[in-house]
Amino acid sequence: MAFFDLESPENNETDNLVWLGHLSPDSDTIGSAIGAAELFGGEARRAGELNKETAFVVEYCGVEVPKLISKVEGQKVGLVDFNQKTQLHKDVDNGDIVAIIDHHAIQDQPITFNTPVSVDIRPWGSAATILADRFEKMGKEMSPTTACVLLAGILSDTLVFESPTTCPVDKPYAEKLAKIAGIEDLYDFGQKMMEAKSDLADVSTYDVLKGDFKHYEINGKKVGFGVAETLLPEQLLERKADLLSEMEGEKAKQGLDFIFFAIVDTKTKNAHLVVYSDAEAELAAAAYGYTTEANLMYLPGLMSRKSQLMPAVQATLTA
Amino acid sequence: MAFFDLESPENNETDNLVWLGHLSPDSDTIGSAIGAAELFGGEARRAGELNKETAFVVEYCGVEVPKLISKVEGQKVGLVDFNQKTQLHKDVDNGDIVAIIDHHAIQDQPITFNTPVSVDIRPWGSAATILADRFEKMGKEMSPTTACVLLAGILSDTLVFESPTTCPVDKPYAEKLAKIAGIEDLYDFGQKMMEAKSDLADVSTYDVLKGDFKHYEINGKKVGFGVAETLLPEQLLERKADLLSEMEGEKAKQGLDFIFFAIVDTKTKNAHLVVYSDAEAELAAAAYGYTTEANLMYLPGLMSRKSQLMPAVQATLTA
Repeated sequence: MAFFDLESPENNETDNLVWLGHLSPDSDTIGSAIGAAELFGGEARRAGELNKETAFVVEYCGVEVPKLISKVEGQKVGLVDFNQKTQLHKDVDNGDIVAIIDHHAIQDQPITFNTPVSVDIRPWGSAATILADRFEKMGKEMSPTTACVLLAGILSDTLVFESPTTCPVDKPYAEKLAKIAGIEDLYDFGQKMMEAKSDLADVSTYDVLKGDFKHYEINGKKVGFGVAETLLPEQLLERKADLLSEMEGEKAKQGLDFIFFAIVDTKTKNAHLVVYSDAEAELAAAAYGYTTEANLMYLPGLMSRKSQLMPAVQATLTA
Repeated sequence: MAFFDLESPENNETDNLVWLGHLSPDSDTIGSAIGAAELFGGEARRAGELNKETAFVVEYCGVEVPKLISKVEGQKVGLVDFNQKTQLHKDVDNGDIVAIIDHHAIQDQPITFNTPVSVDIRPWGSAATILADRFEKMGKEMSPTTACVLLAGILSDTLVFESPTTCPVDKPYAEKLAKIAGIEDLYDFGQKMMEAKSDLADVSTYDVLKGDFKHYEINGKKVGFGVAETLLPEQLLERKADLLSEMEGEKAKQGLDFIFFAIVDTKTKNAHLVVYSDAEAELAAAAYGYTTEANLMYLPGLMSRKSQLMPAVQATLTA
């Protein structure tokens, strides 16, 4: 493995270098991959199909949709926006990985290495914020289109600064990026992204479930947790029976011990948890302290899988 | 947990903040803890007794020996120079940890978290090099004594730039640190450190074995691996019978599957591996490709546990 160091990009070998985010790619994972490729060299790749919001973002920003990752000889892979094995595309071997830039906790199934690899994890609102900071600290200008997709990453992951995962640096960087991208009203851009994401009428229930779905392994238990952030929660609550049916199939197919799906109402900032069976109801009761009624648990004030929903499950399963 | 961010030290809460390295503290772990405390606030702590080299370094540099870590209410702990659970002092809970600054691979037993925590891992020669870089990038001056212990961290971990773990930034930072510390000949300082470390005549065999000893868990197997870097390998080779006897006791006490002790000759840059039993001989043969004779395996050109000795064991146990 050639020496690769995030701190000295001018010395890195960039032939066959690609930047890749997690499965079920979202706006932060795609924006960060594009940003990292511009900053460090190489090309952005994706690990699956884009959701509606991210499809809107790449069109709005005028960037090409990154190609799907595939096995290449001598491949070097930089990861953005995740660090868990359960979220790594199967075409990537651990030995190919040269760097990780992320804003998630190191949890039970981190990608491991035989030799040291650059890891930059910060408790920030998005991986895109870290990329924006790295551009600035390295004194490197970015293209307006890259500024646009990085801005989208921040807006998406922080729910336009309303998510509890938002940190003090997210908004200032978003404003700088908007300026470079030539976007006058970033709130309007954020609103358009939320609307694109919310319009799920013509999306199959299976794709709704899997649109932002992550796998975790905690204390030997496999947990699948999907989230839909929407301005139109009713549209999904009406599909509860179909969602439960798709969750049943997915739980069996993936061999999960628990499966959850949270419908996050981005207007009122509350969530409705779809609870598949008694096993999930018991875990959710211990994690969140509420009761399940007709396969639904109302979670007032909870919006973030990363900083609220999963930490409670993690703490319960490791207690 | 209060928000703690390596990138904005001015906003961090530093009451009850301590900086801590790994068990069996060495010059890099102690120097980096002292450097981090000066840069980010808080105090340096140690997780065990200092080895001979590090005792020499703190006296030479004129710094106080950090106090042993102890449980304190509301404690916040920044970790330097390690990321594995097996190297964490028992008085530290995962929930107390606010940051990790390290230069080792993320391996099988990383410290895990419920929420995101700052992690800065770089494939550099020492954690002290990362601290020196952070001082420079943040534009913060350091005291001459801190420059001295950070320099010692670099010299120790890179064996005065002779170890294969040495990276392009280590030497330039060492030279800058020497200037701040007022040390005219850093090679002379490095030589004195090596001599201090090599003089093990009055050190008990148990303390020799445990002076730089690390635990790993790989694919469910527990491995203990001690290293002594010395200019006087004969002094230790003569104590082989005593070493094997202490290894027997330690293997049983710690419930290890494998125990190794490498006597690294820092003059000739070769190692002599003390091989406890047939189980270790078999693993070492697969990992290094040499044969064991009378409980010794000669390893020409191998000096580094981090980049040579452990990666081969890791690869063998996960093959």
